[in-house]
Amino acid sequence: MIKAGIIGATGYAGAEIARILLNHRDVEIKWFGSKSYIDQKYKDVYGNMFELVEDVCKDDNLSELADMVDVIFTATPQGFLAGVLNEELLSKVKIIDLSADFRLKDVSVYEKWYKIEHKAPQFIEEAVYGLCEINRNKITEKTRLVANPGCYTTCSILTAYPLVKEGLIDVSTLIVDAKSGTSGAGRSAKLPNLFCEVNENIKAYGVASHRHTPEIEEQLSYAGNCDVVINFTPHLVPMNRGILATEYANLKKRPDGMLPSYEDIKAVYDKYYGREKFVRILDKGILPETKWVEGSNYVDINFVIDERTGRIIMMGALDNLVKGAAGQAVQNMNLLLGLPEDEGLRLVPVFP
Amino acid sequence: MIKAGIIGATGYAGAEIARILLNHRDVEIKWFGSKSYIDQKYKDVYGNMFELVEDVCKDDNLSELADMVDVIFTATPQGFLAGVLNEELLSKVKIIDLSADFRLKDVSVYEKWYKIEHKAPQFIEEAVYGLCEINRNKITEKTRLVANPGCYTTCSILTAYPLVKEGLIDVSTLIVDAKSGTSGAGRSAKLPNLFCEVNENIKAYGVASHRHTPEIEEQLSYAGNCDVVINFTPHLVPMNRGILATEYANLKKRPDGMLPSYEDIKAVYDKYYGREKFVRILDKGILPETKWVEGSNYVDINFVIDERTGRIIMMGALDNLVKGAAGQAVQNMNLLLGLPEDEGLRLVPVFP
Amino acid sequence: MIKAGIIGATGYAGAEIARILLNHRDVEIKWFGSKSYIDQKYKDVYGNMFELVEDVCKDDNLSELADMVDVIFTATPQGFLAGVLNEELLSKVKIIDLSADFRLKDVSVYEKWYKIEHKAPQFIEEAVYGLCEINRNKITEKTRLVANPGCYTTCSILTAYPLVKEGLIDVSTLIVDAKSGTSGAGRSAKLPNLFCEVNENIKAYGVASHRHTPEIEEQLSYAGNCDVVINFTPHLVPMNRGILATEYANLKKRPDGMLPSYEDIKAVYDKYYGREKFVRILDKGILPETKWVEGSNYVDINFVIDERTGRIIMMGALDNLVKGAAGQAVQNMNLLLGLPEDEGLRLVPVFP
Amino acid sequence: MIKAGIIGATGYAGAEIARILLNHRDVEIKWFGSKSYIDQKYKDVYGNMFELVEDVCKDDNLSELADMVDVIFTATPQGFLAGVLNEELLSKVKIIDLSADFRLKDVSVYEKWYKIEHKAPQFIEEAVYGLCEINRNKITEKTRLVANPGCYTTCSILTAYPLVKEGLIDVSTLIVDAKSGTSGAGRSAKLPNLFCEVNENIKAYGVASHRHTPEIEEQLSYAGNCDVVINFTPHLVPMNRGILATEYANLKKRPDGMLPSYEDIKAVYDKYYGREKFVRILDKGILPETKWVEGSNYVDINFVIDERTGRIIMMGALDNLVKGAAGQAVQNMNLLLGLPEDEGLRLVPVFP
Repeated sequence: MIKAGIIGATGYAGAEIARILLNHRDVEIKWFGSKSYIDQKYKDVYGNMFELVEDVCKDDNLSELADMVDVIFTATPQGFLAGVLNEELLSKVKIIDLSADFRLKDVSVYEKWYKIEHKAPQFIEEAVYGLCEINRNKITEKTRLVANPGCYTTCSILTAYPLVKEGLIDVSTLIVDAKSGTSGAGRSAKLPNLFCEVNENIKAYGVASHRHTPEIEEQLSYAGNCDVVINFTPHLVPMNRGILATEYANLKKRPDGMLPSYEDIKAVYDKYYGREKFVRILDKGILPETKWVEGSNYVDINFVIDERTGRIIMMGALDNLVKGAAGQAVQNMNLLLGLPEDEGLRLVPVFP
Repeated sequence: MIKAGIIGATGYAGAEIARILLNHRDVEIKWFGSKSYIDQKYKDVYGNMFELVEDVCKDDNLSELADMVDVIFTATPQGFLAGVLNEELLSKVKIIDLSADFRLKDVSVYEKWYKIEHKAPQFIEEAVYGLCEINRNKITEKTRLVANPGCYTTCSILTAYPLVKEGLIDVSTLIVDAKSGTSGAGRSAKLPNLFCEVNENIKAYGVASHRHTPEIEEQLSYAGNCDVVINFTPHLVPMNRGILATEYANLKKRPDGMLPSYEDIKAVYDKYYGREKFVRILDKGILPETKWVEGSNYVDINFVIDERTGRIIMMGALDNLVKGAAGQAVQNMNLLLGLPEDEGLRLVPVFP
Repeated sequence: MIKAGIIGATGYAGAEIARILLNHRDVEIKWFGSKSYIDQKYKDVYGNMFELVEDVCKDDNLSELADMVDVIFTATPQGFLAGVLNEELLSKVKIIDLSADFRLKDVSVYEKWYKIEHKAPQFIEEAVYGLCEINRNKITEKTRLVANPGCYTTCSILTAYPLVKEGLIDVSTLIVDAKSGTSGAGRSAKLPNLFCEVNENIKAYGVASHRHTPEIEEQLSYAGNCDVVINFTPHLVPMNRGILATEYANLKKRPDGMLPSYEDIKAVYDKYYGREKFVRILDKGILPETKWVEGSNYVDINFVIDERTGRIIMMGALDNLVKGAAGQAVQNMNLLLGLPEDEGLRLVPVFP
Repeated sequence: MIKAGIIGATGYAGAEIARILLNHRDVEIKWFGSKSYIDQKYKDVYGNMFELVEDVCKDDNLSELADMVDVIFTATPQGFLAGVLNEELLSKVKIIDLSADFRLKDVSVYEKWYKIEHKAPQFIEEAVYGLCEINRNKITEKTRLVANPGCYTTCSILTAYPLVKEGLIDVSTLIVDAKSGTSGAGRSAKLPNLFCEVNENIKAYGVASHRHTPEIEEQLSYAGNCDVVINFTPHLVPMNRGILATEYANLKKRPDGMLPSYEDIKAVYDKYYGREKFVRILDKGILPETKWVEGSNYVDINFVIDERTGRIIMMGALDNLVKGAAGQAVQNMNLLLGLPEDEGLRLVPVFP
């Protein structure tokens, strides 16, 4: 039995890791870390876990934890892991970090967008960006540190990736208009996250300044082998879970001077995702809805070509806490440990 | 591999049976019955099933189906199963009926509350009321027909059952004030179920006339060995899933003239449910919330004694589509087929 | 032009007073008090007020305020007004207090349920309980201090009042099962009020211990001229506004040994509310829904008699921020100042 | 007293006209037209109108109605008004049409996007597009027929109009990503509008094919004096009311080769809207939220310049039933009748 520890187990993402691992037949959770709830019973923090988890929450002692478990999930604020990571830890245990600390290869970009100093830049190079469908071959039993992608970024990148990679769109025109449920804002008691403030409301936030922007840009730059600079606009939607990314870009014309056809584009998506279990390219005319992936590790993707404007509108939907966080983290864990990639993740979406 | 068929597979309860059985390791679904969607792909009716179910919907041909499968779930309107049931069917296949057709032993009570003639009263006697925690010993591999309890009734009965059974409350004072999410109203296109009519709204309905009333009364009458007549008031809540039953009754005094203590009552709940996997008696002071059981087969129960009025307030919460419908149906199937009772039902509640 | 000040103007109830007074043709708001937002622009706290209110928030200086205005609304936590009230203030200005400080006539009951010492018991006697439909003749231009009723209490009392007053029900059997939107919990940043905790969830809270209980009991005791002790159970509903009270009581039999008829009961409701603008007794068979009163000062009431149990089920619905708080406060202000009682309150409910 | 009739009074937009006119001091409603509810009491269709409206619904008899009233609102499906309009009607009564029948000047564009034949093209020329802030001088006491703009279009056009008019953006890059509450889908009983289908879900629909596209394009073409072709993508949001439009366009550089500054753009918005009561250009850094305009006739607008991409992101928010439908219709009525433009429309947004 593989032993796992969760640091930040009382945040929504940490709790979702717990939910998934409880049904993972090869893993047992040995450590529910939570600085805010030390010595309190986990089931008193998350009532759904009553009779399922008897553990109490522990402090964030990574060096003690590293001796106890095979893999650590850090579902912690930016800067936490970079502040405590060292060679000794990584020599003992695999770490899957759900924060942004090791997602960006250029430390100056990290420091600019996150406005904190990076305390462990020496591990950035080693860290693998854990977007499994794209970087699967780099996530192996030898990998020690995985930077689990952000929720918006997973959705935004996967939706556009094949077209960027194959050079079918003009990346300088790429715009990502994203909509997220409120669990993405975390479980901290802040006024803007109160029920009455979010309910019956929609707004944009972080316009032209959201921290997931450079992460999307970096990964799409690798894919397109060019410098990608985009507009990314997140919106807060009155629902618990789900992200929908609506993406716009000018299609490049084919050699015959025509726009690519539906079939042209579909073939490219199928080339990249046809055998991917967790990416579903929907049938023609069926548009992604977040409810259809809720509670599961799927990303649903589809697109529409607008002949009038020459643009393609791509849409992707996922559950921000599963494929956008905990599910992808477990998918990475499975790869790190040589388990079937979908172990514990054969979750059928819950509807309604 | 056990073969199952679902009649009414495109209703919310039928679709939830599908969701659960897709993760049940001993069962495969051979028939997605849906009169309204004949020959349409199931995944086009429920987008969450894309790449998970390739079947098309079939007409409600029970005799053909009976030759193909081991167990049939009828998630159909009242009167359907009674209209087609016969001895030949039951000799070939086990049937778990999610309608009310075989729940009430007194056919005249059925006809009075449901206002339709019962077409197969000869099978009422044989049918077992499938409230597993209470009738488990009657649900065996010899049972042919299970009447799966209603959503409100499962919640209402289980919450009060131990106290009625042990004679601790004055059943003539029992009042059940219940609140349900909107999936209980089904997937039919009716104006009162539109988003804008339900959202930001709460109302009572079916006051003093809801059809689950006689079902609760009958079962509690067996438990209390007396005639139970109650007030049952359902309310519609702007949420997808979940039922909360708040129940009021006068406590009988102990021989010493005092009200029973918290410990007295707790001991009775533990006696009946202490070893029940799917009934969770919460810790003192923790009140049930529907969100804590969402997506799972649990019923969460707790109570408060009011010394001022001499009443006990009992509360029970479940997911109306799982323990209140599909989950309990699968639990019954497991019992009928000699499988572990929780097979396919080790579902961790989804939060948030 | 009458001048008004609001202490606690940045809470939901205080903001609703502002919304209503902005459309009141005889009143102007001279003071937006808010300890938490001193010197901040009110429109930066409530974006809906942009271009409508240019004031900045001020500290809670009642003695300065008393010199400036004719009426003060205190939409403040329990204990605030009792802590600062004195004869000089009352000699200068009328005060409408939305807290519980002066609602209960028995100071020991206040101190027991609210668990704080009452700092100004000498004014309890003078304060008028501002439930206009019942105490209208006590709310006059001579009245100096009005205790504005609680949201749950307004709904609970008005729904049962005529039947208690006329002795038609056995008050010892009265049970109030109430459901409230989340704005009733206020605008403070607490984890249980976060969107993801409230949304898709329903729960009871304060069972057998909620502070509105003694307030309902006191008023109904006056009405029934007897000691009323009830069960009151509030529930939190995932919606912004609205309270629905579902109330149960045994009907007393008529002299002829029969239960009162629908017409008997309807006549009693009409006797008390037939000429009340803000109480609407719905047509037979139409049950109250909170959405039908949203944004308005109405209370919608109806009832069902259950011949089987001998009980009556009464239902009342209101908007907790209007008739349950700010609207009733303005209604009281109108009475205090000799204005038409519905001035500024001819609000048509917003649907959907 | 001005007399008004509403055809389609039982749809959400028609009911909102009723709500607003009930508080309009110069108007009384003489006719509640509703083909679906003929002879039923209006208050039985809309419970909020209990004791406020005693009328029964009448058939759609425009010629009878034209003799009775001064102004008719047609809140009807596309094609209705075009099917019955004639010179005699227009000679007797002013008509404000909330459908698309007379919004588009080019009948072939109408017929292409709406897929119905236009039955009264001879009145298209005369009809005035009733976007008051832009066409105010054409909406006079001489005007007979007003085409009330669509909900999405009002929001989309007003948000971009000043920048298009002044030539500050490259209109060929304009993209409108819009999000709407569910009341925009109307009150018809369709499966996709059921609570459980909409709640906890977000999706795009009508991608590259929504009928509001040519309406936005036509009006912005007038403004920019050029051919505007855009992408317009609507999304369905789980809330009752509200539209948020997020719009993207490349900024043209100034003569000095620099991008326009915040102040440059702000000055342009102020030029067009500085004296407009119902358009609020928010303070720097404050982004529009639909909740802040709910129940009111305001449009809230703001923008962010992204120096990295050279784009401007404009955002506009309104209540789709008020400024997006009924409120604007009443605003048009006021202009047609020579009343103060904001009569009956001084509605303070309801929050929360």
